[in-house]
Amino acid sequence: MKINENYQNLTDNYLFATIAQKVRTHEAKNPAAKIIRLGIGDVTLPLAPAVVAAMSKAAAEMSEAATFRGYGDYEGYPFLRQAVCGYYQEKGVSLGEDEVFISDGAKSDIGNILDIFSGDNTVMIPDPVYPVYVDTNIMAGRRIVYLKGNRANGFLPLPDNDKRTDIIYLCSPNNPTGAVYDRAKLQLWVDYALRNEAVILFDSAYEAFVRDNSIPTSIYQIDGASECAIEFCSLSKTAGFTGTRCGYTVVPQSLKRGGVSLNELWLRRQSTKFNGVPYIVQRGAEAVFGDEGRAQTGEAITYYLANARLMMDALDGLGIWYCGGENAPYIWLRCPEGRSSWQYFDFLLSEAGVVGTPGAGFGAGGEGYLRLSAFGERDDVAEAMRRLKSCK
Amino acid sequence: MKINENYQNLTDNYLFATIAQKVRTHEAKNPAAKIIRLGIGDVTLPLAPAVVAAMSKAAAEMSEAATFRGYGDYEGYPFLRQAVCGYYQEKGVSLGEDEVFISDGAKSDIGNILDIFSGDNTVMIPDPVYPVYVDTNIMAGRRIVYLKGNRANGFLPLPDNDKRTDIIYLCSPNNPTGAVYDRAKLQLWVDYALRNEAVILFDSAYEAFVRDNSIPTSIYQIDGASECAIEFCSLSKTAGFTGTRCGYTVVPQSLKRGGVSLNELWLRRQSTKFNGVPYIVQRGAEAVFGDEGRAQTGEAITYYLANARLMMDALDGLGIWYCGGENAPYIWLRCPEGRSSWQYFDFLLSEAGVVGTPGAGFGAGGEGYLRLSAFGERDDVAEAMRRLKSCK
Repeated sequence: MKINENYQNLTDNYLFATIAQKVRTHEAKNPAAKIIRLGIGDVTLPLAPAVVAAMSKAAAEMSEAATFRGYGDYEGYPFLRQAVCGYYQEKGVSLGEDEVFISDGAKSDIGNILDIFSGDNTVMIPDPVYPVYVDTNIMAGRRIVYLKGNRANGFLPLPDNDKRTDIIYLCSPNNPTGAVYDRAKLQLWVDYALRNEAVILFDSAYEAFVRDNSIPTSIYQIDGASECAIEFCSLSKTAGFTGTRCGYTVVPQSLKRGGVSLNELWLRRQSTKFNGVPYIVQRGAEAVFGDEGRAQTGEAITYYLANARLMMDALDGLGIWYCGGENAPYIWLRCPEGRSSWQYFDFLLSEAGVVGTPGAGFGAGGEGYLRLSAFGERDDVAEAMRRLKSCK
Repeated sequence: MKINENYQNLTDNYLFATIAQKVRTHEAKNPAAKIIRLGIGDVTLPLAPAVVAAMSKAAAEMSEAATFRGYGDYEGYPFLRQAVCGYYQEKGVSLGEDEVFISDGAKSDIGNILDIFSGDNTVMIPDPVYPVYVDTNIMAGRRIVYLKGNRANGFLPLPDNDKRTDIIYLCSPNNPTGAVYDRAKLQLWVDYALRNEAVILFDSAYEAFVRDNSIPTSIYQIDGASECAIEFCSLSKTAGFTGTRCGYTVVPQSLKRGGVSLNELWLRRQSTKFNGVPYIVQRGAEAVFGDEGRAQTGEAITYYLANARLMMDALDGLGIWYCGGENAPYIWLRCPEGRSSWQYFDFLLSEAGVVGTPGAGFGAGGEGYLRLSAFGERDDVAEAMRRLKSCK
């Protein structure tokens, strides 16, 4: 029996393990100190009451034979797919119910979508980036071309017409940089993909943080995208579903390559290797799209964006360059005084007891930067910023 | 952009779609007739009260900041992995917590496990069989060798020492045949796998139906299995989780190939392409392994096994050959009078209003057989058997 040798080409990513170890060491030396964690991209606010009520009701339904639900559709219950279609309608995007696939989260689908593509494709991935894009392609042995994000392009790389590619990853609002593509820049990417018969894998997990109406929240708001793009979204950050697990993937019927419908391929993949999302969770997800759920989850996002504002004001006061924080829950800052990502991480931990995420952990292009997350509690964020100012 | 061309080699399986169409046609012609469905492998009894109570409590926890849960471990919460280890301990199998991976169901993991194996492996698959084993390997372009099940071997094929293979699928109690391997037969498979350095993928989704203490309920009850087998299990049939989605996969630390730990490869796969099972569902699954949950889910299985007994008695009376039904929720019967699977399906539908599943839908080796499922309601099963007797 032979293993998949491509796995041997993965580099171990000890980013969060190393952070945890450094924090433990610091705590052991300073037992009285309060550490403030602005590193991890996990939410802190509880689920919206409307979501919990819907899940409790669904759990009760499962206890009665008359309302019990067994196997659901692989692609999700119609009630939830219709709710997603309604949400897109408000964005000006018309989707058919059969173009929406309910998933257990964007991460699973972003990894699993690669099943439907040949290993013999070239993949274009921004750097710095969410490490899952890179690792899932290394596992399949695909050629990877990196697309450098930097201060000059505001961490929003644009297509290079001299380079060809087959699959393009875009994430906007971006993890880790918080940078957001505007309509004109996304149009350049869609036009490039159409010219090259490439497919864009568009990660819109943070779309709910966009409060500026001129910024697209779906790739399908861009002309031509339904002929070249698959969109992945998640309720993890929209509605605090990181531990509840529900997302959705849009594969337009008009997206074909070599005469083959990618929607049909993905349906085949999912019906063969997936059995749907728990009924209870799908009812909770449906509630996110209701009036009450929209209002409640919107309040949570407003809270996180106010955290981001606090951090931005502090960084402005300190004269530190950053992007993100507007229409995004992440702030990506240039480490002051020429420090490397890890040097600044160590400095902040030892001098301020504040934990960020070293940008170098997101790829070579992240060296010299640090990510701060707005998903913490207000008092902690305010205290962290006070400490930052005093330890300058 | 090139698609995965292997998808073009999949044959469309219209089994359940064709059944549904035939039933609709029959209903249209006989609007007053009551159709009894013994075809589909979905459960009908509601979730156990202990499971619903645990999920409702977990939902409430998610509504408070102090008890809210965000991202969990990719491989599942320790409380659930420990519960699974405890369950195995009762079977006489000692597992480490890090050998148990919680999943959203056996189907996902049975498909996804192939990620860690090279495409250049030969796969041995019984015929008839659960179609997912075949399709997932076609998608990856692997060579497939079929292992014929038939009346002579009781649909329990044994290894052929003249043939080499790399990956072996076994399912016991079996879907679709209900046949069950005993200890001696499984030992032959384990010995064969060890000699060939092959890996057994052991699907034990129906293990909870085994009531005969001499029958193994885990491959790890067989000497040497922890050096050659991965086991997949699910709460779908154990506890009615078909719409609640939770299972687990065991990858022993002692399972290595070419010096590489398959446990490490699978952890890497899951941490890269999966983000865990909902907290609420994991709490429900934990309750399955508690005293109350064990008693309640055990009652449901007793109910289904009594359905099977009813069907077996009827078939015995009619002199129809079958296997399964003991220690399994499926009965696999030889179509009487030399009928093909679809001929007998049509006969039962038109003459008795009873829906089975044509054995030919599970592979060439299933031709001439029909699967009946014990997951129906008692009165329906009894009525179906009365009709069967009268339409002989």
